[in-house]
Amino acid sequence: MTENTTAGTTDPTTAEKVARAERAALELATLSDEARSEALHDIADAIDANRDRVLEANERDVAEAEELLEQGEYTQALVDRLKLSDGKLDSIIEMVRSVAAQDDPLGRTLSARHLDDDLDLYKVSVPIGVVAAVFESRPDALVQIASLGLKSGNAVILKGGSEALHSNRVLHELIVEATADVPDGWAANIEAREDVDEVLGMDESVDLLMPRGSSAFVQYIQDNTSIPVLGHTEGVCHVFVDSEADLGMAEEVALDAKVQYPAVCNAVETLLVHQDVAADFLPGMVATYRDHDVTLRGCERTREHVDVGEATEDSWRQEYGDLELDIRVVDSLTAAVGHVTEYGSKHTESILTEDADRAGRFMRGVDSSSVFHNASTRFADGFRYGLGAEVGISTGKTHARGPVGLEGLTTYKWYLEGDGQLVGTYAGEDAKPFRHEPFDGQWNPGHLSGE
Amino acid sequence: MTENTTAGTTDPTTAEKVARAERAALELATLSDEARSEALHDIADAIDANRDRVLEANERDVAEAEELLEQGEYTQALVDRLKLSDGKLDSIIEMVRSVAAQDDPLGRTLSARHLDDDLDLYKVSVPIGVVAAVFESRPDALVQIASLGLKSGNAVILKGGSEALHSNRVLHELIVEATADVPDGWAANIEAREDVDEVLGMDESVDLLMPRGSSAFVQYIQDNTSIPVLGHTEGVCHVFVDSEADLGMAEEVALDAKVQYPAVCNAVETLLVHQDVAADFLPGMVATYRDHDVTLRGCERTREHVDVGEATEDSWRQEYGDLELDIRVVDSLTAAVGHVTEYGSKHTESILTEDADRAGRFMRGVDSSSVFHNASTRFADGFRYGLGAEVGISTGKTHARGPVGLEGLTTYKWYLEGDGQLVGTYAGEDAKPFRHEPFDGQWNPGHLSGE
Repeated sequence: MTENTTAGTTDPTTAEKVARAERAALELATLSDEARSEALHDIADAIDANRDRVLEANERDVAEAEELLEQGEYTQALVDRLKLSDGKLDSIIEMVRSVAAQDDPLGRTLSARHLDDDLDLYKVSVPIGVVAAVFESRPDALVQIASLGLKSGNAVILKGGSEALHSNRVLHELIVEATADVPDGWAANIEAREDVDEVLGMDESVDLLMPRGSSAFVQYIQDNTSIPVLGHTEGVCHVFVDSEADLGMAEEVALDAKVQYPAVCNAVETLLVHQDVAADFLPGMVATYRDHDVTLRGCERTREHVDVGEATEDSWRQEYGDLELDIRVVDSLTAAVGHVTEYGSKHTESILTEDADRAGRFMRGVDSSSVFHNASTRFADGFRYGLGAEVGISTGKTHARGPVGLEGLTTYKWYLEGDGQLVGTYAGEDAKPFRHEPFDGQWNPGHLSGE
Repeated sequence: MTENTTAGTTDPTTAEKVARAERAALELATLSDEARSEALHDIADAIDANRDRVLEANERDVAEAEELLEQGEYTQALVDRLKLSDGKLDSIIEMVRSVAAQDDPLGRTLSARHLDDDLDLYKVSVPIGVVAAVFESRPDALVQIASLGLKSGNAVILKGGSEALHSNRVLHELIVEATADVPDGWAANIEAREDVDEVLGMDESVDLLMPRGSSAFVQYIQDNTSIPVLGHTEGVCHVFVDSEADLGMAEEVALDAKVQYPAVCNAVETLLVHQDVAADFLPGMVATYRDHDVTLRGCERTREHVDVGEATEDSWRQEYGDLELDIRVVDSLTAAVGHVTEYGSKHTESILTEDADRAGRFMRGVDSSSVFHNASTRFADGFRYGLGAEVGISTGKTHARGPVGLEGLTTYKWYLEGDGQLVGTYAGEDAKPFRHEPFDGQWNPGHLSGE
């Protein structure tokens, strides 16, 4: 990559970009919320003032994508997701301002404890450091991830889909130009697949990877780095219609969970139906799905009630991401939990039942990041959860689960304020006991500024 | 491994042990705090009632270790750490009961939000799942990790140091026998290095790895698994004597930080001294260190004030773990932060100064999991922090940092309680707006029990 982004300067290498991001991260961690939020409004203003530049670049991307569409390499859906408009730019600008308006996720004292007289321990939220995100072709993804990164004090390495190359390049330029007061190099754009491979090896410098995209791609990232990875490979979500379900409600929720937006990871892929209600529920449900062009497959017991295709061991594990659905009749709530445990991807499940106790058993029993009672799986989303926006959805078990917003981009530090205390005083035969009393204090001494 | 642990049964394979742990983890997640705490008291009782059995096994380990000591393969310190006594068993039993007495880390509603009328989102603490710990030769480590695992609802895979093989085997047997009411297979003991390698590949089943031991070993684990790893490779800790330090206090704290227990990871390895106080501070400090047999190395400017060996680029990065220390004179607070950034291991640092503002700048500026003001680095420890006990100290940036206790062994789940809501209602042109109002509710419907 030797292409110039600004006249007369050669693009820095990926290693240089990451090194600059690492330095910027240390400074970003000490920047006030005011400064970070102001910078976000500057980004929003810059995008607003340069709509033509963004739309022109986007037209190039769309034109190239349409050629590939004609050659059958791209889908219409991809081209649609890629295309920006003034309306979409309005949403992007509004999103940046809404991130700026969120409460500061940094410097929050998460707990405070008197260890002894004049020896106070504080656990305080801080940024993670350098976060690298690899994402799909929607150009708004770059702006969203950069905005959440900046608000949470993280330096970001951004790698967008190659389809959106020109759009992303311009958006990245606007972001960098608009944030001249933010530590230099806080947002780096990388464009080649080989650059991503290079980043995967930089476990000394990069603190977190956030891949989005196909299962195979996320799996590839997980298998080729020792950097912590936040993301999900699959969204095999389940809706369980319990014996105690309100069947009218169940039909509406199960329909919404599949057809409201079937391409996304939180859409349902398998409908589990308690045997006690299968005969009553299935014929109507299947007719409704058919009205919405859903292709159905079922287990043997399902096929006793309705005329659908045959589900298999493989299809239970499949993320269709389309108007396709598997149906299975189960003996019991325990069997429903068992199916989810065996075939699920720990993303999102929903139980439909009027019995709160049974709901609680299902919700505790399945090991997924989001579990719902009487609601569509499609609610699993950072905006709907009130997180402002999301950098992605995590199905891992550590750090952050489910939709990841600003809080998931923070970690914490332990600050201890003493008066010259020695550990020797609290050890050995005459050890002084600790007090260990929680208290309500906030840690907030002077900010880092001139020497 | 075909050795029998109980008459007539063959030891299960590592894969079988992990599969059982995985099943146990799902059940453990639904066990009440009462049941988990009772089981912990049963473990304490069992160790108390079987002191002879434990001490006999330990004598075998110690005898074997002493042979290797004579052959020069082990150190006296290792043999000392390995040796159990009635007094040490008292502490172990007390530790198990104190873990039982801790507040339940599970089922805590971390946040709650009304998304809309009758649509409430809860973020609730849950266990991580299956946690594998690889630890050093102290036999109390096995009991400590198993206890913290059980209290936090996690299944554990335990691999202790080979020196403690017989002690660990008996302690593990006692733990399993005492917890017959806890889901079968919740605590597995593995003994061979090859078993660890097998576990490293089980990223579908094992949710977290906690290695303790040498830097090289922890690095090996990090490089050979895609399972999240919690731990630290090195503890290169710093004490910075600022220009505004109380030099009497500084001398006491800097001494405690090195000599109180030099073998551990939170002992100081490099003393940074502001140039303004170097002439006043260094001669007395060096004399005091010499009284305590500390071998010293310094930078050129240090050697202008005191007669010590020469520190090098390599020695700044060295974790001595012994009565050895490097000293460096720095120009400024910023230079001190710069040294820590360049050579530190993100473990624990301390600034000694009477100026709270300067303390704050140092503490925000260094990127370590624990940063202290006027206190010894040796305070970085789960017990001293009031966490009850610790499974280890993490220098990673995500999930848990610093001393990791019960809370670090938990993650969370999102629970959504609805009334049949559809995402379609909140999308598109006539989208209903969300309320997104935080509230104080607790999520606590019926526990998982019989069908």
